[in-house]
Amino acid sequence: MLQAPAVALGVQLSVLAEADDASAALVIPSAPVGDHNDLDAVCRFAASCDVVTFDHEHVPADVLAALEADGVPLHPSPHALRFAQDKLAMRRRLTEIGVSCPRWVAARTRSDVEVFGAEAGWPIVAKTPRGGYDGKGVRVVSTPADLDDLTDWLNAVGAPGPLAEGILLEEHVSFQRELAVLIARSPSGQAAAWPVVETVQTDGVCAEVLAPAPDLDPATAAEATHAALRIAGELGVTGVLAVEMFQVTSDADRVTRHSGGRAAYLVNELAMRPHNSGHWSIDGAVTSQFEQHLRAVLDLPLGDPRPLAPWTVMANVLGGDYAEIYPAYRHVMARDPGLKVHMYGKGVRPGRKIGHVNVSGPDLSAARARAQHAADYLQGVIDE
Amino acid sequence: MLQAPAVALGVQLSVLAEADDASAALVIPSAPVGDHNDLDAVCRFAASCDVVTFDHEHVPADVLAALEADGVPLHPSPHALRFAQDKLAMRRRLTEIGVSCPRWVAARTRSDVEVFGAEAGWPIVAKTPRGGYDGKGVRVVSTPADLDDLTDWLNAVGAPGPLAEGILLEEHVSFQRELAVLIARSPSGQAAAWPVVETVQTDGVCAEVLAPAPDLDPATAAEATHAALRIAGELGVTGVLAVEMFQVTSDADRVTRHSGGRAAYLVNELAMRPHNSGHWSIDGAVTSQFEQHLRAVLDLPLGDPRPLAPWTVMANVLGGDYAEIYPAYRHVMARDPGLKVHMYGKGVRPGRKIGHVNVSGPDLSAARARAQHAADYLQGVIDE
Repeated sequence: MLQAPAVALGVQLSVLAEADDASAALVIPSAPVGDHNDLDAVCRFAASCDVVTFDHEHVPADVLAALEADGVPLHPSPHALRFAQDKLAMRRRLTEIGVSCPRWVAARTRSDVEVFGAEAGWPIVAKTPRGGYDGKGVRVVSTPADLDDLTDWLNAVGAPGPLAEGILLEEHVSFQRELAVLIARSPSGQAAAWPVVETVQTDGVCAEVLAPAPDLDPATAAEATHAALRIAGELGVTGVLAVEMFQVTSDADRVTRHSGGRAAYLVNELAMRPHNSGHWSIDGAVTSQFEQHLRAVLDLPLGDPRPLAPWTVMANVLGGDYAEIYPAYRHVMARDPGLKVHMYGKGVRPGRKIGHVNVSGPDLSAARARAQHAADYLQGVIDE
Repeated sequence: MLQAPAVALGVQLSVLAEADDASAALVIPSAPVGDHNDLDAVCRFAASCDVVTFDHEHVPADVLAALEADGVPLHPSPHALRFAQDKLAMRRRLTEIGVSCPRWVAARTRSDVEVFGAEAGWPIVAKTPRGGYDGKGVRVVSTPADLDDLTDWLNAVGAPGPLAEGILLEEHVSFQRELAVLIARSPSGQAAAWPVVETVQTDGVCAEVLAPAPDLDPATAAEATHAALRIAGELGVTGVLAVEMFQVTSDADRVTRHSGGRAAYLVNELAMRPHNSGHWSIDGAVTSQFEQHLRAVLDLPLGDPRPLAPWTVMANVLGGDYAEIYPAYRHVMARDPGLKVHMYGKGVRPGRKIGHVNVSGPDLSAARARAQHAADYLQGVIDE
């Protein structure tokens, strides 16, 4: 999705593709195939680039260190990226700089888990520090009895020795809703923030994004945005930063969880790249997250992040039980000419994100209904 | 510029590129190099495509006929495209279907020219039927004495035997301003029209487009749009059609020029592809002309052409006297974060269209000033 703004800006992209038929390789002429874990492949690739950025967090630290040692401009830098790669490092750093987080602890033993559960109250949430996304690597531990399964689970998710390096335990936050703050920051330190959005998750996967978050107290929005800008500055993030948050409401929540004062939100996750919570901006903002990411990592002046319409709703399209999406694709376009359909050129697999739709308009519930209808139809959930 | 919406729609483009480093080849992975005049090269290329469309009018009729005979789906079809390739054929056809045109005649001899000049009044406009664009292939003939130069000129512009096949003579229209109507039509016959725009030309080259055309009488806008839709239907156009018009105002103009009644416009040119007068729609409409062209030629349902803002102004960026545009590019982005900059990845040559800028907003004169400033700055006309 970086290719569209790259074409407009006259920026030549090159992608280290996982395979010849990877989505990015289908739309970017320069797409050598290589493994992001392979130091030689990554270094050869980077040698042809002016700036290197990332579309996921999984490039290993030793590969990043080697690139940095070679003088390759990396945005975000390995130093910043670490906090998006390692949830324990992220929690430690955010706590240091006084950003509101759920109560958390690093657990190495069964006893650590029992102690935290008793203290924070069951259920608690166990997370592998690395490698998780879309609900993978996250598990709710309801009672001490569930602990018997925990080691099995850690082996199953393939977390390498996580109990040795510590797993992250967090209180199970009873939140009002989930928010995301998306900002961009350039190496020069210029930053720009999109409006705070609401993200609606189903089974740990983002289903819908409402931009801006409806009925959000402006003071809370400003506070959450300020927190994201502070995180970007303190951690030295360059490019797009997505800060996923829980909105919590009771005064008790506000007081007990945040050492530095009362906060209406708790930071859940960080992503240092264009993020699903920002896909609405492709059609709904003056500057999309993809254009802004390019501008930021190239240290170009940032674009205006303002929305183009009162509301934009993004709904993800997950693969359904059929391989042929074309008739549904025609149908939703015919039914709603104002719908913006984005398909990723990926094979259809049940549950896989294969595209999204954006709908903008003056009425939130109308926009939600249109976006949801299109996503449901493309997923084969409804047929009319 | 088709690549950005192709990525979003999940459509794979392939381009027959004039060279390895052609703009399109820099952004489209499948870009075999070949000459659009070379029958074999074009047929080989077309064999790999589901649908073939065009980004200029210069593919020869015999090449088009061969593709059509091979059963390659062509949009627009050769039958329709002929009226964008040959201005004499276009004038004949538009006159047949009763669309308002300037007075015109096909001239084969010096005497034809003298007779038409005397009848329509000097000056008159001479056009080569084929191969002209951006003011090339067009010449104002002020007096009968200028005729001595006409043959020299025809040889100079390389029009093959134009006096033998006839050149097009038109009255010199004294117009109020120039308008363009952009519509799209699909093979199924669905059509959609963007608002009528005003185009501002400098030395025969479009400098600025105002969308929608300011202070345009709604009845005239509807009439002009209706004319464009009729042209598309009657000529069987598929894809985007741009109809360039002169707006004329006096009742005398209206009565004398249009056999079918009074018209406030005269059709100047047709283009059957995304057109410079529609570049505003990339940032200023729900569906851009490039997305709509893809939807139309693939016979997908068309998208909503409505504008996203009260006004969008497009200003073309022409190459200036310097090769290095990067400092100016940074400057205009820093000065105006809401500016949408589009660069074509072409080498800078004086007078060559190398990009454009779009500015949307609630105030027309502010948008014009912003767009013009950016274009002037990128062209090196101003420095601040």
